[in-house]
Amino acid sequence: MRIAVLGSGFIARFYAESLHAQRRKDYITMVYSRTAENAKRFADDYGLPYYKTSMSEAIAHDEVDVVLISLPNHLHEAAVMECVKAKKHVICTKPLGRNALEAKRMLDAVEKAGIFGGYLEDLCYTPKFLKSMESVKRGDIGRVLWAKSRETHPGPHSDWFWDKEKSGGGAIIDLGCHCVEISRNFIGKNIKPIEVMCWADTQVHPIDAEDHAIGLVKYANGAIGQFEVSWTFRGGMDLRDEVMGTEGTIWLNSFLRTGFEMFTTGKGSDGYVAEKAESTTGWLFPVGDESHELGYPNMFTDMFEAIEEKREPLESFYDGYVVNAILDAAFVSAESKRWEPVILEDWRGDESEDTQKKWESYDDNHYLIKKEVLPNGDITFILKHKSTGEVSRKVILAK
Amino acid sequence: MRIAVLGSGFIARFYAESLHAQRRKDYITMVYSRTAENAKRFADDYGLPYYKTSMSEAIAHDEVDVVLISLPNHLHEAAVMECVKAKKHVICTKPLGRNALEAKRMLDAVEKAGIFGGYLEDLCYTPKFLKSMESVKRGDIGRVLWAKSRETHPGPHSDWFWDKEKSGGGAIIDLGCHCVEISRNFIGKNIKPIEVMCWADTQVHPIDAEDHAIGLVKYANGAIGQFEVSWTFRGGMDLRDEVMGTEGTIWLNSFLRTGFEMFTTGKGSDGYVAEKAESTTGWLFPVGDESHELGYPNMFTDMFEAIEEKREPLESFYDGYVVNAILDAAFVSAESKRWEPVILEDWRGDESEDTQKKWESYDDNHYLIKKEVLPNGDITFILKHKSTGEVSRKVILAK
Amino acid sequence: MRIAVLGSGFIARFYAESLHAQRRKDYITMVYSRTAENAKRFADDYGLPYYKTSMSEAIAHDEVDVVLISLPNHLHEAAVMECVKAKKHVICTKPLGRNALEAKRMLDAVEKAGIFGGYLEDLCYTPKFLKSMESVKRGDIGRVLWAKSRETHPGPHSDWFWDKEKSGGGAIIDLGCHCVEISRNFIGKNIKPIEVMCWADTQVHPIDAEDHAIGLVKYANGAIGQFEVSWTFRGGMDLRDEVMGTEGTIWLNSFLRTGFEMFTTGKGSDGYVAEKAESTTGWLFPVGDESHELGYPNMFTDMFEAIEEKREPLESFYDGYVVNAILDAAFVSAESKRWEPVILEDWRGDESEDTQKKWESYDDNHYLIKKEVLPNGDITFILKHKSTGEVSRKVILAK
Amino acid sequence: MRIAVLGSGFIARFYAESLHAQRRKDYITMVYSRTAENAKRFADDYGLPYYKTSMSEAIAHDEVDVVLISLPNHLHEAAVMECVKAKKHVICTKPLGRNALEAKRMLDAVEKAGIFGGYLEDLCYTPKFLKSMESVKRGDIGRVLWAKSRETHPGPHSDWFWDKEKSGGGAIIDLGCHCVEISRNFIGKNIKPIEVMCWADTQVHPIDAEDHAIGLVKYANGAIGQFEVSWTFRGGMDLRDEVMGTEGTIWLNSFLRTGFEMFTTGKGSDGYVAEKAESTTGWLFPVGDESHELGYPNMFTDMFEAIEEKREPLESFYDGYVVNAILDAAFVSAESKRWEPVILEDWRGDESEDTQKKWESYDDNHYLIKKEVLPNGDITFILKHKSTGEVSRKVILAK
Repeated sequence: MRIAVLGSGFIARFYAESLHAQRRKDYITMVYSRTAENAKRFADDYGLPYYKTSMSEAIAHDEVDVVLISLPNHLHEAAVMECVKAKKHVICTKPLGRNALEAKRMLDAVEKAGIFGGYLEDLCYTPKFLKSMESVKRGDIGRVLWAKSRETHPGPHSDWFWDKEKSGGGAIIDLGCHCVEISRNFIGKNIKPIEVMCWADTQVHPIDAEDHAIGLVKYANGAIGQFEVSWTFRGGMDLRDEVMGTEGTIWLNSFLRTGFEMFTTGKGSDGYVAEKAESTTGWLFPVGDESHELGYPNMFTDMFEAIEEKREPLESFYDGYVVNAILDAAFVSAESKRWEPVILEDWRGDESEDTQKKWESYDDNHYLIKKEVLPNGDITFILKHKSTGEVSRKVILAK
Repeated sequence: MRIAVLGSGFIARFYAESLHAQRRKDYITMVYSRTAENAKRFADDYGLPYYKTSMSEAIAHDEVDVVLISLPNHLHEAAVMECVKAKKHVICTKPLGRNALEAKRMLDAVEKAGIFGGYLEDLCYTPKFLKSMESVKRGDIGRVLWAKSRETHPGPHSDWFWDKEKSGGGAIIDLGCHCVEISRNFIGKNIKPIEVMCWADTQVHPIDAEDHAIGLVKYANGAIGQFEVSWTFRGGMDLRDEVMGTEGTIWLNSFLRTGFEMFTTGKGSDGYVAEKAESTTGWLFPVGDESHELGYPNMFTDMFEAIEEKREPLESFYDGYVVNAILDAAFVSAESKRWEPVILEDWRGDESEDTQKKWESYDDNHYLIKKEVLPNGDITFILKHKSTGEVSRKVILAK
Repeated sequence: MRIAVLGSGFIARFYAESLHAQRRKDYITMVYSRTAENAKRFADDYGLPYYKTSMSEAIAHDEVDVVLISLPNHLHEAAVMECVKAKKHVICTKPLGRNALEAKRMLDAVEKAGIFGGYLEDLCYTPKFLKSMESVKRGDIGRVLWAKSRETHPGPHSDWFWDKEKSGGGAIIDLGCHCVEISRNFIGKNIKPIEVMCWADTQVHPIDAEDHAIGLVKYANGAIGQFEVSWTFRGGMDLRDEVMGTEGTIWLNSFLRTGFEMFTTGKGSDGYVAEKAESTTGWLFPVGDESHELGYPNMFTDMFEAIEEKREPLESFYDGYVVNAILDAAFVSAESKRWEPVILEDWRGDESEDTQKKWESYDDNHYLIKKEVLPNGDITFILKHKSTGEVSRKVILAK
Repeated sequence: MRIAVLGSGFIARFYAESLHAQRRKDYITMVYSRTAENAKRFADDYGLPYYKTSMSEAIAHDEVDVVLISLPNHLHEAAVMECVKAKKHVICTKPLGRNALEAKRMLDAVEKAGIFGGYLEDLCYTPKFLKSMESVKRGDIGRVLWAKSRETHPGPHSDWFWDKEKSGGGAIIDLGCHCVEISRNFIGKNIKPIEVMCWADTQVHPIDAEDHAIGLVKYANGAIGQFEVSWTFRGGMDLRDEVMGTEGTIWLNSFLRTGFEMFTTGKGSDGYVAEKAESTTGWLFPVGDESHELGYPNMFTDMFEAIEEKREPLESFYDGYVVNAILDAAFVSAESKRWEPVILEDWRGDESEDTQKKWESYDDNHYLIKKEVLPNGDITFILKHKSTGEVSRKVILAK
């Protein structure tokens, strides 16, 4: 694949590093930036043949097969519409839109045009996440009850993130989009998200948007997704997922505790030690291959193979739309201070979910609440009578 | 101190182990249980001179200085009233009451009688917690923004926990009482808890009460307390606290990852390996000194010294009452699906809190949103104009 | 017990903190120091009734039941001899002697006098170590093959440690004594240590003694003890044990990763954050209750109960002597560059050990080297022919 | 590059998975195996156009640019000689030879033929290792004093490993080759390895070779490399590196603690959970992308780019030869029980190393042993007199 990158900022560089790491088949041929200087520097840094300051020219270029949007949030829609016009496949960084309305327009346009629309949700492609998903699908942890994802750090580097008009919000739109989609994968993409409860506040920074938020997303099968996002965390970037199932538990740490620990007095070094570390001396926790650990190579492989195989990628524009709809409900809830419904006019998953619980019976008259082997070998059963509801305890003595 | 223990179950044994560990000055002289057999066995196991099946006799006994209540929740109030009658100091296991009403009656009775009322909130006495509190008070992590405490395990061992009438609720009352008081300590006991948002569900067990809940507690200064409690967790007992402050972060793990890791095929052993482990083979994570790690010795030392020094303990009946009031609001919120006020008719902390934020200025016209040193040495400032609110970026190039 | 402390330095204070923590029965009545000022300050700090600058007066005092030696290494022997004269029980900090000769004289004198001689090897009393020993004794990890103990930090605080004449050596005598006794406990105190191989060097500090050493101790049953000690480690104090057995593995971390993690910018604090941390900002790893985690309370409880019960403590003067003998061999080996025998003229354990291995048979003609279940369900057996020694592979296909 | 794989076993499959992961430019065109069935299955599994049972035909094939040897150790030399004959570039799995003699013959033949000889030491290409090396080279941890690498697991899967004649040894040759080269990289490839001390024993398995060994490698600059290798470890595969420098410390865990933790009762799953885990229930520690975490993709990228750029790879046949020479000394030492010289007739690094230590002076008359800030703010200096050698202490009181 020959790729045009729209944008030349932080995330565009991350994408380029990943696309040019190892000996990949795919490569970037074009970069677009609003300023010629940035476009040129990016093209030079990655050895690209072309750069443009006209978005439509960049997209229409003959040597471009697929367009990669890594522009600020408020420019996604216009860029997608240009791809639609040029009938070029498009893959777009997260979040898809600033809200579900924008996302829905992009989704509809892409589907109508018959082009490919891939949603660059890298954290749903990390090696740990993909292996976890295999485990969950195999049933290793049983029925998923709760899936929490947390992303917190001291705040983004570019100015437009801090401008609510351009970004669509604060930590919720910037980080919550990751967390919501991670939980949604664990719980099941076919399960409908029903309602959201969210707390959000601006605790530290002089901005209009929230810099800290916690939200709960209730799904049709009773499972709960949780997101914890913040631009006020101190200590680096905290990126953790936790999943509870009826038969097991999964804990992932993608950034701060990955088996790489280092202490330095700083005396021997020239001052630079590790990225995003918030300190350059003392105990540091670098990540081996940051780009891979964050999912980029797996994501691009899936996207390009999906295009070739004419199949949906793991993360599509439709997923981006659902995420936006959930975040919309979160913003409403943060204001209304109550649970708010997720409004999904276009729902493609299971319509209803049987939430009838199947209790385990101990005998004809009792449900089993808990069985426990005591240290002395006695076995205790805590039971509930099926009709009276009375709780009782039965002990089988060890021989 | 000569101690009478009311109750002879799981937690009573934990208390006894702690009181008789090391070479302590204090010792148990008496145990009360409703059944003579249990009372006798307990007295034998710990070498106590006396046991009784009459609570009032046990309490009134000459060789009893202080009464330790480790009875099921619905029996706390009656036991406290007996202590009041006998004018004996009383220390009571958590939660104090099944609700704030009960707790308030106990608090009032004890204060009126002029006896000591200690609240046995052990998790606010763990070595890690106490040292964390020193750090927080010293200002190491700045202003506390968020304090989360999590306690989850596969469910309690005794039948009465599972009976909502006797316990007062499910995981919220059993585990949430710990978490709420932990957060409250980190945020500051003088700061008023204002309102609570709580999700609760019965996801797994055939019971009336909740077996999983997540709650947020908003404090007068804008800080947020969070509790995550469950009787559905698989993998042992998960006991973790996390605190975010403007200048730092604290993470505590009190049970599953404490620097003790062990693998066993199970082939060499007689079947028993580690308590609460949910498995006896594979990787296990024992706790060195479980009782100390859970705070019991420090708690009893504080209680008995407080009695001798005629001062308040770190955790008093008043604290137990505040915790109950917060949990009451959580139960209401779980039903109403909105934030609910914490009703505290007896509030002894700060009345109002200045929530006016003091933004850091960059210059006369701008607030500083973020300062960042880039890898190339450039320094970027993200600024907000004080009157227009416009976000801008300023770069000072590296020399 | 009423305790006289000889010495008023760093370790004496650690002992005192532990003895006066919680509400213990035992208390210090007396302190001896060579300088009156230090003695007085120590007595004031811990509320002691008496202090002396005459060691014999301190020991002979009526209100002293047991003498605790926390003096520099070269003063241990003289202090023990004073206790022998006064017929007072003695407990002595590690190492017992600067070499086995000194240790043997102390051991003999104490035994001849019929007084109690306890060896204050605190790291064999940590909660994690004691619980590990239970596991090992229960057979959870099978036959112990290798036991490694590591203690490294940036070097001790007092001048006499760095003076080879006074201390008896460098990191080997200071830290190796801990590690050797930890391994010896795991492997079995009844198993004879046979020979030692040791590398030692002075890599960093301008001293005569070694500041870094690694040693292997071979035991009569083929098990290997390993010590890694250094005064050149950067990052705090690294205190880890690892044990490999035929049926399992144990990993202990007693100081740097114990479930307590903290980040601080340092901006909010007054400069002091955590002890032994080598830095006051960034990620820090405090220990909850340092004294307990290092074994002091359990150690003193064992010592005083042993005196009362007229039994041997877990760690006695004899153990101190064996440790010195092993370290003597290590010093010789570091010079000779070959394995050196452990010279134990007084050996009280098992005399010979059957080192004949019992191989597991697969059938009459073959030993089983390894059995493995492959992902596809096939079972492979790697076999060795009993007479020809030929290695072969047998596969049982999955159904 | 079009690659011919010689061998179709476990490691050949690992190589193939890595070469065909992502969308790489390079691909396998040919596989050789001694048995047609294995060759065909391998070709089918990875979609290869050709397979052969004649090694020379496989190597000579037109569509083969580079030959990848993944055969048992005793077949490496013959395979290399075939590549030399055919003038095809060759990359060979570890260890290069069964001993330095074999390795030297391969090295010489390849160099004489002018073909590329790459040494497939994957663990020197893991993301964590590469990033650590950047840190070490930047000086973050100062002068390297000690570099330990540990690889232990319950033993290999194929029969030939257990046959000393075919493999060249046991755990030392199988795992020690990794560890020795890891340490050598950290200490510096230009620094000459001087002598080796090694303990080795057959503790558990009925084999002739060692199943457990520990070795020390002394380098010309005084730094120490350490390897710990075993086929007797229980609990999975333990893969850890530790480095101590004068200004810092690095700890890497490449397999068992990488931020992925999972508990499963096993009830919900079909029995398979995670590879190399030694158990399928309880707490498991999967690795996200095992192949990447073990270094394969980075290794192949370096090899193929080196061929194209006509430069040496990071790990060459020469490195393989040095590793074999060090392991040879280890085998001799395990027998002789003393330090044994590393015999390197072909040494290409620095010839001599200045081991003169430069002590830090406190003033004209004293070296500085240690400076420490006490909790009360006092600063202590431990000093050594330059001529008398006397150790003293100086305190500057806090204001």
